[in-house]
Amino acid sequence: MPTLDEINRFRPAEFSRAFGAVYEHSAWIAERAFALRPATGFASRAAVHAALVATVQAAGADEQLALLDAHPELAGKEAEAGALTAASQREQSAAGLIGLTSEETQRLRALNARYRDRFGFPFIIAARNNTRAAIFGALEARLHNTRAMEINNALMQVGEIARLRVFDLIEA
Amino acid sequence: MPTLDEINRFRPAEFSRAFGAVYEHSAWIAERAFALRPATGFASRAAVHAALVATVQAAGADEQLALLDAHPELAGKEAEAGALTAASQREQSAAGLIGLTSEETQRLRALNARYRDRFGFPFIIAARNNTRAAIFGALEARLHNTRAMEINNALMQVGEIARLRVFDLIEA
Repeated sequence: MPTLDEINRFRPAEFSRAFGAVYEHSAWIAERAFALRPATGFASRAAVHAALVATVQAAGADEQLALLDAHPELAGKEAEAGALTAASQREQSAAGLIGLTSEETQRLRALNARYRDRFGFPFIIAARNNTRAAIFGALEARLHNTRAMEINNALMQVGEIARLRVFDLIEA
Repeated sequence: MPTLDEINRFRPAEFSRAFGAVYEHSAWIAERAFALRPATGFASRAAVHAALVATVQAAGADEQLALLDAHPELAGKEAEAGALTAASQREQSAAGLIGLTSEETQRLRALNARYRDRFGFPFIIAARNNTRAAIFGALEARLHNTRAMEINNALMQVGEIARLRVFDLIEA
């Protein structure tokens, strides 16, 4: 696992390789974030994360929606087919979302379908920060929001997923 | 309202004055974030926000908890006494939390009290990103989490509140 000092000596390709999987199927974020490296280098793991978040927040609305769309549904088809990214697999497992009863799976899929119908992108939540009960409750609660609100909430959750992954990828 | 160019010419005291109220009663964050200004200046509003978030995420656990504790309860005593910060007043109004029925106020206060009992800090959510119904649902959902999870969720919401405020304070 690289230290901050090592990361601060990375060339662009190494930085992209190290952090390309932090955002689901969206390696362009790490590629673009390299340019935001401070002249004196990243001072903390939080600073690396901040460069990634700033890249997403400064991206176009179409790019942001594509990023949301690149996320798997919780306990969805990708999970069933074993097609989750390694990080997503770990996170969904930790939240108790792998191995739901078939009744729970059906309820979650029905809620996911309502969410996608309403907003046009999958429901996204940082699974490591929520128990299974909290995830069900949050999904139901967020169905009460507008699309503009949910784009903000989804991008915020994506940023938190990224933070937890980045902190895991850099020597403390 | 300052432009990015103007902000990039700010001295520390001007930066602190401009962004000191972005975090509730926690002006130390803007003061410390000034040091994270890139050599070439902030390239976007998102970059200013990123410096603030990195400051919070790199702060000590005690400082983070003090930040959470500096937040008012939704529809709580501060709101009743007219003692909210100007930004909080606007945000709670927008979410329909000023002028609840007395039954709704009692229900929200009971949930807030359970939340504070369980976790030791107030329930925090970006009110502008949630309808009233979503806020009630999120509060109930998040009571299912552990304290470590809720510290992460609360800091994430605080970061999003800051983002919405920072974007409002800088000329687009």
